[in-house]
Amino acid sequence: MTELTELLLADSVGLVTPQILRFDDPLPLDCGRTLASYDLIYETYGELNAARSNAVLICHALSGDHHAAGYHSAKDRKPGWWDSCIGPGKPFDTRHFFVVSVNNLGGCKGSTGPTTINPATGQPYGPDFPIVTVKDWVRSQARLADHLGVKQWAAVIGGSLGGMQVLQWSIDYPARIRHALVIAAAPKLSAQNIAFNEVARQAIMSDPDFHAGHYYAHDVIPRRGLMLARMLGHITYLSDDLMRAKFGRELREGKLNFGFDVEFQVESYLRYQGRAFVERFDANTYLLMTKALDYFDPASDYGHDLSAALQGVTASFLVVAFTGDWRFAPARSREIVRALLDGDKDVSYAEIEANEGHDAFLMPIPRYMEVLDAFMRRVAAEGGL
Amino acid sequence: MTELTELLLADSVGLVTPQILRFDDPLPLDCGRTLASYDLIYETYGELNAARSNAVLICHALSGDHHAAGYHSAKDRKPGWWDSCIGPGKPFDTRHFFVVSVNNLGGCKGSTGPTTINPATGQPYGPDFPIVTVKDWVRSQARLADHLGVKQWAAVIGGSLGGMQVLQWSIDYPARIRHALVIAAAPKLSAQNIAFNEVARQAIMSDPDFHAGHYYAHDVIPRRGLMLARMLGHITYLSDDLMRAKFGRELREGKLNFGFDVEFQVESYLRYQGRAFVERFDANTYLLMTKALDYFDPASDYGHDLSAALQGVTASFLVVAFTGDWRFAPARSREIVRALLDGDKDVSYAEIEANEGHDAFLMPIPRYMEVLDAFMRRVAAEGGL
Repeated sequence: MTELTELLLADSVGLVTPQILRFDDPLPLDCGRTLASYDLIYETYGELNAARSNAVLICHALSGDHHAAGYHSAKDRKPGWWDSCIGPGKPFDTRHFFVVSVNNLGGCKGSTGPTTINPATGQPYGPDFPIVTVKDWVRSQARLADHLGVKQWAAVIGGSLGGMQVLQWSIDYPARIRHALVIAAAPKLSAQNIAFNEVARQAIMSDPDFHAGHYYAHDVIPRRGLMLARMLGHITYLSDDLMRAKFGRELREGKLNFGFDVEFQVESYLRYQGRAFVERFDANTYLLMTKALDYFDPASDYGHDLSAALQGVTASFLVVAFTGDWRFAPARSREIVRALLDGDKDVSYAEIEANEGHDAFLMPIPRYMEVLDAFMRRVAAEGGL
Repeated sequence: MTELTELLLADSVGLVTPQILRFDDPLPLDCGRTLASYDLIYETYGELNAARSNAVLICHALSGDHHAAGYHSAKDRKPGWWDSCIGPGKPFDTRHFFVVSVNNLGGCKGSTGPTTINPATGQPYGPDFPIVTVKDWVRSQARLADHLGVKQWAAVIGGSLGGMQVLQWSIDYPARIRHALVIAAAPKLSAQNIAFNEVARQAIMSDPDFHAGHYYAHDVIPRRGLMLARMLGHITYLSDDLMRAKFGRELREGKLNFGFDVEFQVESYLRYQGRAFVERFDANTYLLMTKALDYFDPASDYGHDLSAALQGVTASFLVVAFTGDWRFAPARSREIVRALLDGDKDVSYAEIEANEGHDAFLMPIPRYMEVLDAFMRRVAAEGGL
């Protein structure tokens, strides 16, 4: 994608420009601390209608950001991370919807986070940035909605950690969300999920270049640790089946070398993914995102009863899971569906046959696209859009 | 276990003393190099009968060693790693069998490996120790058998990487093995298995204290990397179910602390396991063991046809798998069983209901013990023992 002509493709949102919004209203956080002021960076695609009734919010996952669709410049090699779903004629159809995508607090792509200068010290927040929760994010997203004049989202949408934000929206602001689209998520992490996050965190924190999180001052980054964390993450994003299909036991040079350099294709793939990630992501942000995942457990405030946690929701739900996802397996999505049904809530559930693993939620799998499309047509129809 | 009286328990092999055997006959290795001389450390339990027909060989897994049963001193807090199965009245009954357990080449518990002084340099082999394969191990074990006067093992037995050695024995020395007991193994690693090993290796090799494997000379060990490797390993040894039952989302202090110290019990468990391992295991050995796993693929010499690889075997097999094992799932064991059946080999298969994960093979699960016991009674009966 280097030609301007490509940007003019009928189904692309084309060139987009992120906006930064400054909030000077202090934000109280779950950890007990308060952010006196903060920035949120976001993008929008499509136009808000006069009734302000066609806005949908996209919530991003662990390593995502506000750049969900289109291109920042004609030189971009890749579009935003969910370009397959956002654009004219795509499921989140920008001819009907005003799509909003925001980088969460604690992020490293423009919203206030560890890499931001802390006004109190004149240095980057680094490890002093407060641990933020899914609930905190939703609170900050609600303020963005206020600013945009969106009283009620036509839909709030997200996969993985993004799906957890959707659930939280439906609980915390039931009147502000008409439809909820929860994809490849879970109502809380399992011990195994937490264990993988913990190994990733230890990899980062034990890297001598981490300097207790103050690596910016040392002009280094915990490259080795962040790379390991990402490699490990990738194993959990792909299914065993997909890895078999993609790499099998293929040897890079066709033979064993009896050494510790890359031999199997899968090793090459993981090292590449790890190295690329280090160039684009901040280690302190990665730590925060994994903690937000670990802490997410909306039922914990309701005697560990998810049905009770969801008792007040009024949104219509679509819950989507993928058969090959072992990070958040379909059984985890079904827990959400069951809890919603317990309360006679409006919920549909789609289990998509896909061997792509957890990452399937980012891919244009035909059956998945059809399901999203059908749901969003309903969102549009019910909203008279 | 600190009281001498406990050592006298009727079902323990009691105090044992390892023996070291020096081989000066050069050993050719799969990598093309040759070990001019080497030591093997081993233990034996029970007595070799006059006909030398009651010997069984125990092959250890990734982090195992020759100390499979009994105690080295009255102060030992724990017995050998498979004490649940080896002893008078236990499945590998030392009243009938002469049980042999050897630390594999490349190990760090007394057999020649990276921590051994390389006679050519006067320094530890370190990273210059050759990458050894399952086939190499079996070749060295055959020489140990020669020394012990064992022409044919009544049985060769092992779990996980140990089970792979059993398979290799049955292929390379069909006349020297009457029964083969392959537990929680696989005919080769999957791409996902290799991926986990690769992350573990990268954790070790990227630790600044690794010094390209020459850390002995720097008087340090790659503690952080080895700890990460072990933490990651542990996730794959336990099932998601067992982790849920054992740790759930239990918080160590009963509440979230909004910090990066240990919060969830599962984090505490993993860090403890990681730290303990660093004190007892060598990082270069860990690297070698993971490579032996990655390389194991006996079918590769037979056009990737496992049935063809097993065509010459004559041993009677028992293959055991555990339902909760996702590292080497029952489907992997069934590949072995199917290939044996293709060649009309004598094979029994037991799939044990167990939620303990891969580590189940080390645990005294009643149904599993019964299966081992029944098989070993048959081994004894057929051998007139």
